[in-house]
Amino acid sequence: MQTCPMCTMWHDQPELRIAEMDRCYVLLNRDQFFPGYTFVFTRNHVTELFHLDRQARAAVVEEVNAVAAALYNLFKPAKMNYELLGNMVPHMHWHLVPRFQGDPLWPRPIWSEPHEEVILAPAEYAGRIQAIKAALHRT
Amino acid sequence: MQTCPMCTMWHDQPELRIAEMDRCYVLLNRDQFFPGYTFVFTRNHVTELFHLDRQARAAVVEEVNAVAAALYNLFKPAKMNYELLGNMVPHMHWHLVPRFQGDPLWPRPIWSEPHEEVILAPAEYAGRIQAIKAALHRT
Repeated sequence: MQTCPMCTMWHDQPELRIAEMDRCYVLLNRDQFFPGYTFVFTRNHVTELFHLDRQARAAVVEEVNAVAAALYNLFKPAKMNYELLGNMVPHMHWHLVPRFQGDPLWPRPIWSEPHEEVILAPAEYAGRIQAIKAALHRT
Repeated sequence: MQTCPMCTMWHDQPELRIAEMDRCYVLLNRDQFFPGYTFVFTRNHVTELFHLDRQARAAVVEEVNAVAAALYNLFKPAKMNYELLGNMVPHMHWHLVPRFQGDPLWPRPIWSEPHEEVILAPAEYAGRIQAIKAALHRT
Protein backbone atom coordinates (compact mmCIF):
# COMPACT_ATOMS: atom_id res chain seq x y z
CA MET A 1 0.00 0.00 0.00
CA GLN A 2 1.33 3.40 -0.98
CA THR A 3 2.05 5.77 1.86
CA CYS A 4 0.12 9.04 2.03
CA PRO A 5 2.51 11.97 2.58
CA MET A 6 -0.27 13.98 4.21
CA CYS A 7 -0.80 11.30 6.86
CA THR A 8 2.74 11.86 8.15
CA MET A 9 3.19 15.54 7.34
CA TRP A 10 2.37 16.83 10.81
CA HIS A 11 4.98 14.49 12.23
CA ASP A 12 7.49 15.17 9.46
CA GLN A 13 7.52 18.98 9.44
CA PRO A 14 7.58 20.19 13.05
CA GLU A 15 9.21 23.46 12.01
CA LEU A 16 6.12 24.40 9.95
CA ARG A 17 3.44 23.61 12.53
CA ILE A 18 0.91 26.33 13.26
CA ALA A 19 -1.95 24.66 15.12
CA GLU A 20 -3.53 21.37 16.05
CA MET A 21 -7.30 21.66 15.86
CA ASP A 22 -10.07 19.16 16.66
CA ARG A 23 -10.42 17.93 13.09
CA CYS A 24 -7.44 19.39 11.26
CA TYR A 25 -3.79 20.24 11.41
CA VAL A 26 -2.61 23.66 10.26
CA LEU A 27 0.81 23.88 8.64
CA LEU A 28 2.65 26.70 6.89
CA ASN A 29 3.56 25.84 3.30
CA ARG A 30 7.34 25.62 3.07
CA ASP A 31 7.17 27.53 -0.21
CA GLN A 32 6.33 31.09 0.85
CA PHE A 33 6.30 32.57 -2.66
CA PHE A 34 2.78 33.62 -1.64
CA PRO A 35 3.31 35.00 1.89
CA GLY A 36 1.04 33.28 4.38
CA TYR A 37 0.21 30.27 2.16
CA THR A 38 -1.07 27.74 4.69
CA PHE A 39 -2.41 24.18 4.56
CA VAL A 40 -5.34 22.99 6.64
CA PHE A 41 -5.60 19.21 6.40
CA THR A 42 -7.71 16.62 8.16
CA ARG A 43 -6.21 14.47 10.88
CA ASN A 44 -7.86 11.43 9.33
CA HIS A 45 -7.33 10.23 5.80
CA VAL A 46 -10.51 11.32 4.03
CA THR A 47 -10.78 12.60 0.49
CA GLU A 48 -14.05 14.16 -0.70
CA LEU A 49 -16.25 16.61 1.23
CA PHE A 50 -19.23 14.30 0.71
CA HIS A 51 -17.45 11.42 2.41
CA LEU A 52 -17.87 13.26 5.71
CA ASP A 53 -21.15 13.39 7.56
CA ARG A 54 -22.76 16.80 7.84
CA GLN A 55 -21.48 17.50 11.32
CA ALA A 56 -17.90 16.55 10.49
CA ARG A 57 -18.03 18.58 7.28
CA ALA A 58 -19.26 21.65 9.13
CA ALA A 59 -16.57 21.19 11.77
CA VAL A 60 -13.81 20.98 9.15
CA VAL A 61 -15.17 24.04 7.36
CA GLU A 62 -15.27 25.99 10.64
CA GLU A 63 -11.58 25.25 11.13
CA VAL A 64 -10.75 26.21 7.54
CA ASN A 65 -12.76 29.36 8.07
CA ALA A 66 -11.00 30.29 11.32
CA VAL A 67 -7.60 29.94 9.69
CA ALA A 68 -8.72 31.94 6.64
CA ALA A 69 -10.01 34.71 8.89
CA ALA A 70 -6.77 34.77 10.87
CA LEU A 71 -4.67 34.96 7.69
CA TYR A 72 -6.91 37.72 6.38
CA ASN A 73 -6.66 39.72 9.59
CA LEU A 74 -2.90 39.31 9.75
CA PHE A 75 -1.87 39.79 6.11
CA LYS A 76 -4.73 42.07 4.98
CA PRO A 77 -4.88 40.63 1.45
CA ALA A 78 -7.25 41.76 -1.27
CA LYS A 79 -8.86 38.30 -1.28
CA MET A 80 -8.44 34.90 0.32
CA ASN A 81 -8.20 31.90 -2.03
CA TYR A 82 -9.48 28.53 -0.79
CA GLU A 83 -8.76 25.40 -2.79
CA LEU A 84 -9.47 21.76 -2.13
CA LEU A 85 -7.94 19.75 -4.98
CA GLY A 86 -6.16 16.52 -4.06
CA ASN A 87 -5.38 15.19 -7.52
CA MET A 88 -1.86 14.26 -6.49
CA VAL A 89 -2.45 13.76 -2.76
CA PRO A 90 -6.13 12.89 -2.19
CA HIS A 91 -5.96 13.24 1.63
CA MET A 92 -8.15 16.31 2.24
CA HIS A 93 -5.99 19.43 2.41
CA TRP A 94 -7.09 22.99 1.82
CA HIS A 95 -4.76 25.51 0.24
CA LEU A 96 -5.41 28.86 1.96
CA VAL A 97 -3.62 31.65 0.16
CA PRO A 98 -3.78 35.38 0.92
CA ARG A 99 -3.75 37.18 -2.44
CA PHE A 100 -2.57 40.74 -2.96
CA GLN A 101 -3.07 43.14 -5.80
CA GLY A 102 0.70 43.44 -5.96
CA ASP A 103 1.48 39.72 -6.08
CA PRO A 104 3.21 38.43 -9.24
CA LEU A 105 0.23 36.44 -10.53
CA TRP A 106 -2.64 38.68 -9.39
CA PRO A 107 -5.51 38.34 -10.24
CA ARG A 108 -4.89 34.93 -11.78
CA PRO A 109 -4.94 31.68 -9.77
CA ILE A 110 -1.71 30.73 -8.02
CA TRP A 111 -1.20 27.85 -10.47
CA SER A 112 -1.26 29.93 -13.63
CA GLU A 113 2.53 30.22 -13.89
CA PRO A 114 5.30 28.11 -12.39
CA HIS A 115 7.68 29.85 -10.00
CA GLU A 116 10.79 29.16 -7.98
CA GLU A 117 10.04 28.23 -4.38
CA VAL A 118 10.68 30.92 -1.79
CA ILE A 119 12.41 29.27 1.17
CA LEU A 120 12.80 31.34 4.34
CA ALA A 121 15.45 31.27 7.03
CA PRO A 122 14.44 29.22 10.09
CA ALA A 123 13.89 32.36 12.17
CA GLU A 124 11.63 33.78 9.47
CA TYR A 125 9.46 30.65 9.47
CA ALA A 126 9.29 30.80 13.25
CA GLY A 127 8.31 34.47 13.20
CA ARG A 128 5.63 34.03 10.56
CA ILE A 129 4.18 31.00 12.35
CA GLN A 130 4.15 32.87 15.65
CA ALA A 131 2.28 35.76 14.03
CA ILE A 132 -0.34 33.41 12.52
CA LYS A 133 -0.78 31.62 15.86
CA ALA A 134 -1.37 34.97 17.54
CA ALA A 135 -3.86 35.97 14.84
CA LEU A 136 -5.69 32.65 15.29
CA HIS A 137 -5.97 33.27 19.02
CA ARG A 138 -7.38 36.74 18.40
CA THR A 139 -9.88 35.55 15.75
CA MET B 1 -20.55 51.63 -8.65
CA GLN B 2 -19.22 48.81 -10.76
CA THR B 3 -21.69 46.07 -11.60
CA CYS B 4 -20.99 42.55 -10.35
CA PRO B 5 -21.35 40.05 -13.21
CA MET B 6 -22.17 37.29 -10.73
CA CYS B 7 -25.13 39.26 -9.36
CA THR B 8 -26.83 39.07 -12.78
CA MET B 9 -25.46 35.77 -14.04
CA TRP B 10 -28.50 33.68 -13.09
CA HIS B 11 -30.66 36.11 -15.00
CA ASP B 12 -28.24 36.45 -17.91
CA GLN B 13 -27.57 32.79 -18.69
CA PRO B 14 -30.88 30.89 -18.60
CA GLU B 15 -29.52 28.24 -20.96
CA LEU B 16 -26.89 27.22 -18.38
CA ARG B 17 -29.13 27.00 -15.32
CA ILE B 18 -29.00 23.78 -13.31
CA ALA B 19 -30.67 24.52 -9.99
CA GLU B 20 -31.90 27.23 -7.68
CA MET B 21 -31.10 26.32 -4.08
CA ASP B 22 -31.90 28.09 -0.80
CA ARG B 23 -28.59 29.93 -0.61
CA CYS B 24 -27.01 29.41 -4.02
CA TYR B 25 -27.56 29.20 -7.74
CA VAL B 26 -26.02 26.34 -9.70
CA LEU B 27 -24.92 27.05 -13.26
CA LEU B 28 -23.00 25.01 -15.80
CA ASN B 29 -19.79 26.71 -16.94
CA ARG B 30 -20.17 27.63 -20.59
CA ASP B 31 -16.62 26.40 -21.18
CA GLN B 32 -16.90 22.61 -20.94
CA PHE B 33 -13.22 21.89 -21.63
CA PHE B 34 -13.50 20.07 -18.29
CA PRO B 35 -16.77 18.11 -18.66
CA GLY B 36 -19.15 18.88 -15.85
CA TYR B 37 -17.40 22.08 -14.70
CA THR B 38 -20.12 23.80 -12.65
CA PHE B 39 -20.41 27.00 -10.65
CA VAL B 40 -22.19 27.24 -7.31
CA PHE B 41 -22.58 30.89 -6.34
CA THR B 42 -24.43 32.66 -3.58
CA ARG B 43 -27.68 34.46 -4.29
CA ASN B 44 -26.45 37.40 -2.24
CA HIS B 45 -23.30 39.36 -2.92
CA VAL B 46 -20.92 38.10 -0.24
CA THR B 47 -17.20 37.54 -0.65
CA GLU B 48 -15.30 35.71 2.08
CA LEU B 49 -16.40 32.56 3.95
CA PHE B 50 -15.85 34.39 7.25
CA HIS B 51 -18.28 37.13 6.29
CA LEU B 52 -21.11 34.63 6.71
CA ASP B 53 -22.40 33.55 10.09
CA ARG B 54 -21.82 29.93 11.01
CA GLN B 55 -25.28 28.79 10.02
CA ALA B 56 -25.19 30.49 6.61
CA ARG B 57 -21.68 29.15 5.97
CA ALA B 58 -22.76 25.60 6.78
CA ALA B 59 -25.81 25.98 4.54
CA VAL B 60 -23.72 27.20 1.60
CA VAL B 61 -21.25 24.37 2.11
CA GLU B 62 -24.08 21.81 2.20
CA GLU B 63 -25.24 23.07 -1.19
CA VAL B 64 -21.70 23.02 -2.60
CA ASN B 65 -21.37 19.52 -1.20
CA ALA B 66 -24.63 18.29 -2.74
CA VAL B 67 -23.62 19.54 -6.17
CA ALA B 68 -20.14 18.02 -5.82
CA ALA B 69 -21.64 14.67 -4.86
CA ALA B 70 -24.06 14.77 -7.80
CA LEU B 71 -21.24 15.60 -10.24
CA TYR B 72 -19.15 12.81 -8.78
CA ASN B 73 -21.96 10.29 -9.04
CA LEU B 74 -22.75 11.29 -12.60
CA PHE B 75 -19.28 11.75 -14.11
CA LYS B 76 -17.36 9.28 -11.91
CA PRO B 77 -14.15 11.34 -11.89
CA ALA B 78 -10.93 10.39 -10.13
CA LYS B 79 -11.29 13.45 -7.88
CA MET B 80 -13.50 16.48 -7.42
CA ASN B 81 -11.79 19.88 -7.32
CA TYR B 82 -13.38 22.65 -5.24
CA GLU B 83 -12.09 26.19 -5.57
CA LEU B 84 -13.25 29.44 -4.06
CA LEU B 85 -11.07 32.23 -5.46
CA GLY B 86 -12.79 35.47 -6.44
CA ASN B 87 -9.76 37.59 -7.34
CA MET B 88 -11.48 38.89 -10.45
CA VAL B 89 -15.10 38.51 -9.35
CA PRO B 90 -15.26 38.59 -5.53
CA HIS B 91 -18.94 37.53 -5.33
CA MET B 92 -18.66 34.06 -3.76
CA HIS B 93 -18.60 31.41 -6.46
CA TRP B 94 -17.25 27.89 -6.17
CA HIS B 95 -15.62 26.19 -9.14
CA LEU B 96 -16.62 22.51 -8.96
CA VAL B 97 -14.64 20.48 -11.47
CA PRO B 98 -14.69 16.70 -11.96
CA ARG B 99 -11.11 15.64 -12.75
CA PHE B 100 -10.17 12.52 -14.66
CA GLN B 101 -6.90 10.69 -14.98
CA GLY B 102 -7.25 11.09 -18.73
CA ASP B 103 -7.91 14.83 -18.75
CA PRO B 104 -5.32 17.02 -20.53
CA LEU B 105 -3.98 18.68 -17.38
CA TRP B 106 -4.25 15.79 -14.93
CA PRO B 107 -3.08 15.78 -12.15
CA ARG B 108 -2.26 19.48 -12.26
CA PRO B 109 -4.75 22.21 -11.32
CA ILE B 110 -7.12 23.34 -14.08
CA TRP B 111 -5.32 26.70 -14.28
CA SER B 112 -1.86 25.32 -14.99
CA GLU B 113 -2.15 25.76 -18.77
CA PRO B 114 -4.38 27.98 -20.87
CA HIS B 115 -6.77 26.22 -23.26
CA GLU B 116 -9.31 27.03 -25.92
CA GLU B 117 -12.87 27.06 -24.60
CA VAL B 118 -15.02 24.07 -25.46
CA ILE B 119 -18.45 25.37 -26.47
CA LEU B 120 -21.23 22.81 -26.90
CA ALA B 121 -24.26 22.80 -29.15
CA PRO B 122 -27.44 23.98 -27.41
CA ALA B 123 -28.84 20.44 -27.26
CA GLU B 124 -25.63 19.21 -25.65
CA TYR B 125 -25.84 21.87 -22.93
CA ALA B 126 -29.46 20.93 -22.36
CA GLY B 127 -28.63 17.24 -22.15
CA ARG B 128 -25.74 17.72 -19.76
CA ILE B 129 -27.78 20.02 -17.54
CA GLN B 130 -30.66 17.56 -17.48
CA ALA B 131 -28.32 14.77 -16.44
CA ILE B 132 -26.86 16.89 -13.61
CA LYS B 133 -30.34 17.86 -12.43
CA ALA B 134 -31.31 14.19 -12.33
CA ALA B 135 -28.14 13.33 -10.42
CA LEU B 136 -28.89 16.13 -7.93
CA HIS B 137 -32.35 14.73 -7.33
CA ARG B 138 -30.91 11.26 -6.73
CA THR B 139 -28.15 12.50 -4.39
